[in-house]
Amino acid sequence: MRAFRIVEWRRPPALVDVPVPEPGPGQVLVRVAGCGLCHSDLTMMDLPREVGEAIGWRAPFTLGHETAGRVAALGAGATGVAPGDAVALVSPSSCGGCWYCVRGLDSSCPDGLAGRGYGRDGGLAEYVLAGGVRDLVPLRTLDPRTAGPLTDAGATAYHAVRRALPRVVPGGLAVVIGAGGLGTFAVQFLRALTSARVVAVDADPARLGLARELGAHEALAGATGATPGEIKALSDGGRGADAVLDFVGADGTIRAGLASLRPGGAYGLVGASGGTFPGPWFGGLPRDGEVFTFQGSTIADVQEVVALAERGAIRNEVEVFPLERVEEAYARLGEGGLRGRVVVVPDG
Amino acid sequence: MRAFRIVEWRRPPALVDVPVPEPGPGQVLVRVAGCGLCHSDLTMMDLPREVGEAIGWRAPFTLGHETAGRVAALGAGATGVAPGDAVALVSPSSCGGCWYCVRGLDSSCPDGLAGRGYGRDGGLAEYVLAGGVRDLVPLRTLDPRTAGPLTDAGATAYHAVRRALPRVVPGGLAVVIGAGGLGTFAVQFLRALTSARVVAVDADPARLGLARELGAHEALAGATGATPGEIKALSDGGRGADAVLDFVGADGTIRAGLASLRPGGAYGLVGASGGTFPGPWFGGLPRDGEVFTFQGSTIADVQEVVALAERGAIRNEVEVFPLERVEEAYARLGEGGLRGRVVVVPDG
Amino acid sequence: MRAFRIVEWRRPPALVDVPVPEPGPGQVLVRVAGCGLCHSDLTMMDLPREVGEAIGWRAPFTLGHETAGRVAALGAGATGVAPGDAVALVSPSSCGGCWYCVRGLDSSCPDGLAGRGYGRDGGLAEYVLAGGVRDLVPLRTLDPRTAGPLTDAGATAYHAVRRALPRVVPGGLAVVIGAGGLGTFAVQFLRALTSARVVAVDADPARLGLARELGAHEALAGATGATPGEIKALSDGGRGADAVLDFVGADGTIRAGLASLRPGGAYGLVGASGGTFPGPWFGGLPRDGEVFTFQGSTIADVQEVVALAERGAIRNEVEVFPLERVEEAYARLGEGGLRGRVVVVPDG
Amino acid sequence: MRAFRIVEWRRPPALVDVPVPEPGPGQVLVRVAGCGLCHSDLTMMDLPREVGEAIGWRAPFTLGHETAGRVAALGAGATGVAPGDAVALVSPSSCGGCWYCVRGLDSSCPDGLAGRGYGRDGGLAEYVLAGGVRDLVPLRTLDPRTAGPLTDAGATAYHAVRRALPRVVPGGLAVVIGAGGLGTFAVQFLRALTSARVVAVDADPARLGLARELGAHEALAGATGATPGEIKALSDGGRGADAVLDFVGADGTIRAGLASLRPGGAYGLVGASGGTFPGPWFGGLPRDGEVFTFQGSTIADVQEVVALAERGAIRNEVEVFPLERVEEAYARLGEGGLRGRVVVVPDG
Repeated sequence: MRAFRIVEWRRPPALVDVPVPEPGPGQVLVRVAGCGLCHSDLTMMDLPREVGEAIGWRAPFTLGHETAGRVAALGAGATGVAPGDAVALVSPSSCGGCWYCVRGLDSSCPDGLAGRGYGRDGGLAEYVLAGGVRDLVPLRTLDPRTAGPLTDAGATAYHAVRRALPRVVPGGLAVVIGAGGLGTFAVQFLRALTSARVVAVDADPARLGLARELGAHEALAGATGATPGEIKALSDGGRGADAVLDFVGADGTIRAGLASLRPGGAYGLVGASGGTFPGPWFGGLPRDGEVFTFQGSTIADVQEVVALAERGAIRNEVEVFPLERVEEAYARLGEGGLRGRVVVVPDG
Repeated sequence: MRAFRIVEWRRPPALVDVPVPEPGPGQVLVRVAGCGLCHSDLTMMDLPREVGEAIGWRAPFTLGHETAGRVAALGAGATGVAPGDAVALVSPSSCGGCWYCVRGLDSSCPDGLAGRGYGRDGGLAEYVLAGGVRDLVPLRTLDPRTAGPLTDAGATAYHAVRRALPRVVPGGLAVVIGAGGLGTFAVQFLRALTSARVVAVDADPARLGLARELGAHEALAGATGATPGEIKALSDGGRGADAVLDFVGADGTIRAGLASLRPGGAYGLVGASGGTFPGPWFGGLPRDGEVFTFQGSTIADVQEVVALAERGAIRNEVEVFPLERVEEAYARLGEGGLRGRVVVVPDG
Repeated sequence: MRAFRIVEWRRPPALVDVPVPEPGPGQVLVRVAGCGLCHSDLTMMDLPREVGEAIGWRAPFTLGHETAGRVAALGAGATGVAPGDAVALVSPSSCGGCWYCVRGLDSSCPDGLAGRGYGRDGGLAEYVLAGGVRDLVPLRTLDPRTAGPLTDAGATAYHAVRRALPRVVPGGLAVVIGAGGLGTFAVQFLRALTSARVVAVDADPARLGLARELGAHEALAGATGATPGEIKALSDGGRGADAVLDFVGADGTIRAGLASLRPGGAYGLVGASGGTFPGPWFGGLPRDGEVFTFQGSTIADVQEVVALAERGAIRNEVEVFPLERVEEAYARLGEGGLRGRVVVVPDG
Repeated sequence: MRAFRIVEWRRPPALVDVPVPEPGPGQVLVRVAGCGLCHSDLTMMDLPREVGEAIGWRAPFTLGHETAGRVAALGAGATGVAPGDAVALVSPSSCGGCWYCVRGLDSSCPDGLAGRGYGRDGGLAEYVLAGGVRDLVPLRTLDPRTAGPLTDAGATAYHAVRRALPRVVPGGLAVVIGAGGLGTFAVQFLRALTSARVVAVDADPARLGLARELGAHEALAGATGATPGEIKALSDGGRGADAVLDFVGADGTIRAGLASLRPGGAYGLVGASGGTFPGPWFGGLPRDGEVFTFQGSTIADVQEVVALAERGAIRNEVEVFPLERVEEAYARLGEGGLRGRVVVVPDG
């Protein structure tokens, strides 16, 4: 089969021919219908061997961690799905048995450093292996060609919203900084799961327009020094925001985000821009609030995002490329300015 | 090896010779050090075939669901433990991949109806099979001969306490009705995890004495119509109890338990005596409180009970019998009046 | 001023002339714009003197506990509002300083037994006294003539939804039994605050129609023995309902509600029909779920309901009568068949 | 009566004669039995007039915000206490009616900037006024001469522990950085309310000795670059700490605290040393954990601390000075090296 692989460390990945994998005991072979591309793929292409091996990655491996398709074959003892079933593959990797996994905190599983598409064979191929039913979320009505981005871009944004939910009250206000692929999912989750006023903040008017279209009540150009005042003015009684989810994560968005919160509010950092907050924490962080950051999402997150999409509560905008044009698709992703995610389909 | 088995439906179990099982892929073979006996074993011996088969049980099967021992051999691909490691086996059965399991709610897994010692081969034998590392809780200093009861009697009592914890405040009061095997664990967990005043209620003075010895601040003979008044008199400001955990579950204990609560209090029913509450629910149930009931416990519960025992926060009183005297051990259990649990050891 | 009062115990209330009250220190005098009628008013009219006095009621008193209006005058030291401000009056009574009140659990305050409209002078008059700013929720855009029912019918339904929220997940299902005045509020709150599928259950097709109009995804005639099966069939994977809120509270609705839940689900009893559950609790109550019941609502509930209504997230359907036709309005309420609540306006 | 007051901005406070205050409507006059001194008093003495007035302070005012005593007289309408009752006075100030107060979040009340002992007359006098029963926590067996520090030093440490509690599990580990007046309270609360292993970190061996005496399982000299490794080595499976409560709040303790956490752990900043964290937040803050900071405590916190002390769950070490030696007492506080808090008694 064809697979788009990192063949050697620090070399551009290539579309090559490899054997279709055989499902071992408990495993499930999935015929890929579509696989989303992610900015993190681009950084993998540059990873030094020592770093990759230190976190347990093995080269060569096939890229792609936003995969959906149809069950092709079951290994010995595998249950819970049948050939032909449409499924999404959970993006993060986890062991299922550790202290974190048995508490539903599987995005903190130590096994999460390597997984399908990052150090192991992923979904940019005609077939991919799933570890078992724990890795698979059934799709009832969603099209497996385009469902892939729900499992990572969608689930990561959802995880941020879920963390903030207990602090978002009716009559409240929630802010999404950065209205890109993840942020526009967050806008939609906030609309579906709360009755808070939702404010999108972005420097790009086109992205603000999309955020409004997807449900943001307000759209602010920013973030600047004026942003906190604008946000407070939009909140009931000028209290400030219940939650700020920052999908940029630069110095300026951190500063503006923290200053926009009410006492007891939550600031969630998702964007990996490496931003800092150089000021004193006492007095600078939200009073009796909560600051959090994370990577990835849990299996439950993926299940709930798929459930929301099945019910039509969220839209998942994608641009589709055939597998043979995968390099062009990555180039398109690198250029920016996309409305949604890029999906590559082997049978395109 | 020797194993104490239900050989035929509705026939007394027997100590028979069976082959030592072979660990399949991912499985772990454990040399049993000790296995606790449970009242529920006695009911299994009387189960009609139709009922057993309806919930997926297969006869013959070896009894025993409170097992600990040492790892003897690993099946292909099994990881996370090594031969010789002391381990407790999780008592409830779960699939690891369903909606409940991925949220840490594995005691609600549909696969929980049949498991080791109830419809599948359990621990009253020289060896037992574990499904993998998810089934095993490592023991650092605890003796595997006597640790078994922590996994079911301990973990079930712990689950009840954990459910009630959010409603138990400093300055509060928690009540344990029924100071038997599970109830005395609950008294200890409440002392270890809260600063509430703990009240034990039992009709048997010897059991009340044990409850006091294990940490109960107060011991009341009951439950009777006077019990709620006595409990309220012991509470700060006469507010009533924050939580009542009922390990009897008869009409009288339900009535007394509900009437003892403060507004916002929790009543947890654990005892399977089949009690009812015939009065109207509006006005009869705790005002803005919580009524709950459950069976079993989660893997996280077992891990936390073992951690508490490792730290000496709880005592696990057991009476030990060799495997060849297992029938005598069950007779002793049936008689009642034990201070703790009965454990059967194959190498006794 | 005119006031509709219980002048003597167990006598029909009457529209009489009384002096306009003077606001004492910290109090606020409110010119009533509208006051909702409640079924509980009808039972007050029949209350024996001994019962009333035992809970601290004093006759005569003016009826009406769903009041909104405009600030008319402030007593010495009263702050936070200004004459002319539109306000809703919090319906439940609470002291502000007890163990419950300082935790935001003011609906459990021991002072809650007597309050405006139930043992003290309420809002069916031209003016009413509020204890201070704690009793008042400002209205920004809502019309005080019709906002009154938000403070009790709305807030009670909201309290039920808020209690159940932690158990309602995306992809889940919530059931409202009884699509009357409170139940239709609950349908709307569930739509505004969750992405669950919402099912209304009622015997009356007209009420089911209204429930659909207000957002219920499904409407079932019931509750009958078939209801639990129908509800499970509507749920993802046949799991059952995450939450059932029962605004009827009869034997049949309790039975159907409990049987409709998934493991871990919540059953909330709001309806005061005096229903019972005669069966054993072990096995009969939701496995590892939650049963709750309550009366009234907290100040925070009222604030959040008003915030939802200000944002247009809920509709508050009312039928308006002038104060001089208050007896006719009660008769209309007693007949049933109303789409929403009845509001009486002094300046009608 | 004698009172120790800030008579003029930026002038040393003085012990002067002032009239005994009269309780107004709803107020309660308390005869002071003892009042704790706090480091924050020292900073008040240096506050510029403009800053003080900007946050609503009025000079002159009597210092002292850790007060307990006996009820001396009740103003018109005041209820809930009787002359002679021993009471502690809640330290933070709050309005009782705002969005925060009605949710039990009164430490975020906008009125909290000025209160008894900080901008209004406090407890370093023979008498002090309380606003009403909301301000008073009854003492049953505690001596009002020495109970004062529970209301601020105790309650602030308790608030930190309460915020972290949901993340501290049996088998877990909690760290207290800074074993001074607040930190040693935190050690005791963690022991009373959890079964976690408690580690105290301090540079001063005498303070570490006291921390051990009050219940810390481990005492580490630090915080240094080696501290995170030492803490992880003490945790089950090397996971790291569930919670770090930092009562120092310097750059070094923030860095060490963050690096000591397990994924999902909580870092609470209490110490006002003005520390910063200059590194990138993504990757630097605890993975899927929680960072929080706050000032003050809620009324519920004070109630619960008093309840714990009444039950003997915590020790409150104090050194007592008579009111006429209050300046010497502040000097003693400024020197450091105290085992507990300094209390000043008018009748000493």
